[in-house]
Amino acid sequence: MTKGADTRQRILDYAFRLAARDGLGGVSLGSLADDIGLSKSGLFAHFRSKEELQLEMLRTAAAQFIENVMAPAFRKPRGLPRLRALFENWLDWQRNGCIFVTASVELDDQPGRARDYVAEQQQALMDSLTRSAEIAIDEGHFRKDLDAQQFAFEMEAIYLVFHHAHRLLRDPKAARRARAAFQRLIDFAAAPA
Amino acid sequence: MTKGADTRQRILDYAFRLAARDGLGGVSLGSLADDIGLSKSGLFAHFRSKEELQLEMLRTAAAQFIENVMAPAFRKPRGLPRLRALFENWLDWQRNGCIFVTASVELDDQPGRARDYVAEQQQALMDSLTRSAEIAIDEGHFRKDLDAQQFAFEMEAIYLVFHHAHRLLRDPKAARRARAAFQRLIDFAAAPA
Repeated sequence: MTKGADTRQRILDYAFRLAARDGLGGVSLGSLADDIGLSKSGLFAHFRSKEELQLEMLRTAAAQFIENVMAPAFRKPRGLPRLRALFENWLDWQRNGCIFVTASVELDDQPGRARDYVAEQQQALMDSLTRSAEIAIDEGHFRKDLDAQQFAFEMEAIYLVFHHAHRLLRDPKAARRARAAFQRLIDFAAAPA
Repeated sequence: MTKGADTRQRILDYAFRLAARDGLGGVSLGSLADDIGLSKSGLFAHFRSKEELQLEMLRTAAAQFIENVMAPAFRKPRGLPRLRALFENWLDWQRNGCIFVTASVELDDQPGRARDYVAEQQQALMDSLTRSAEIAIDEGHFRKDLDAQQFAFEMEAIYLVFHHAHRLLRDPKAARRARAAFQRLIDFAAAPA
């Protein structure tokens, strides 16, 4: 890694730590430069604005999500096995908080490139879940008349309530309850035996 | 209303507008005083710290939630009619954003009195939903072996995904999908005919 790439990575790592506590809005270029002992101009050489840094954080998180959640699931057989893997990988990903859940709520009323990017990514995720449910219909795992978009909507619901119960309420049963909800959704979607 | 109470209300109203865009973290006492043309000491006479102002905002929102969502539902007959009213009132409440959803995500990693208050209120809501499902069991609307806590967990899930789909994705079908998910949950819970 070149020195420039190394510094860039150091800035991003630190920004992620700040955002985990204070949200994307809590990432200020000024205090970031101070905290990691960089001049403001040194920081600006890497990120010219707060928005640019936020976007790069979101892009980094999106790439990690694909690597850790989506890609391993897509190596599973099509249909139900893939959906189950997706769900489990997603719970694991979520355990330490998800910058997209935070950003979704934080940015929903803040027009701009960061909001656009988050909405785009979250829409892409919904589309990908819908597509996965359609494949499960094609494979004969789910019934032909299932509303695949509704399935995706309800799968996202379980994900969000898991974040809520696990991160805010610290409910030790959060994962168990999320799995029970997902199983109920699968049972509802299942093709008649 | 006394002049003091009036000023206090003006501070709160303005803080709510700031929080709607930037979250609770975006409410700074300094810029708030400037914006509404109050001296810092004038502001401090009402709220001595950012945390105290945040807490008062959350208390205000909790009181409004009870008045607009819970109380009208509790005037409906016990059991299923009450749960249905609760759900519809909740969707209405949510349409313009919900400070508790924002605060849940924003504060989950920020120990303190504001976080404690949000967690307490959200737990109380889950308990209230659980109790409402238990009453629906007693009334014979829901089956005897229903897991009422799981019902509450899944009802909360629908609420959160509605917020997500409506506020972030601006999905025009968000309310329709939320209602379909709730109907599916009711059908699952229903006592055998």
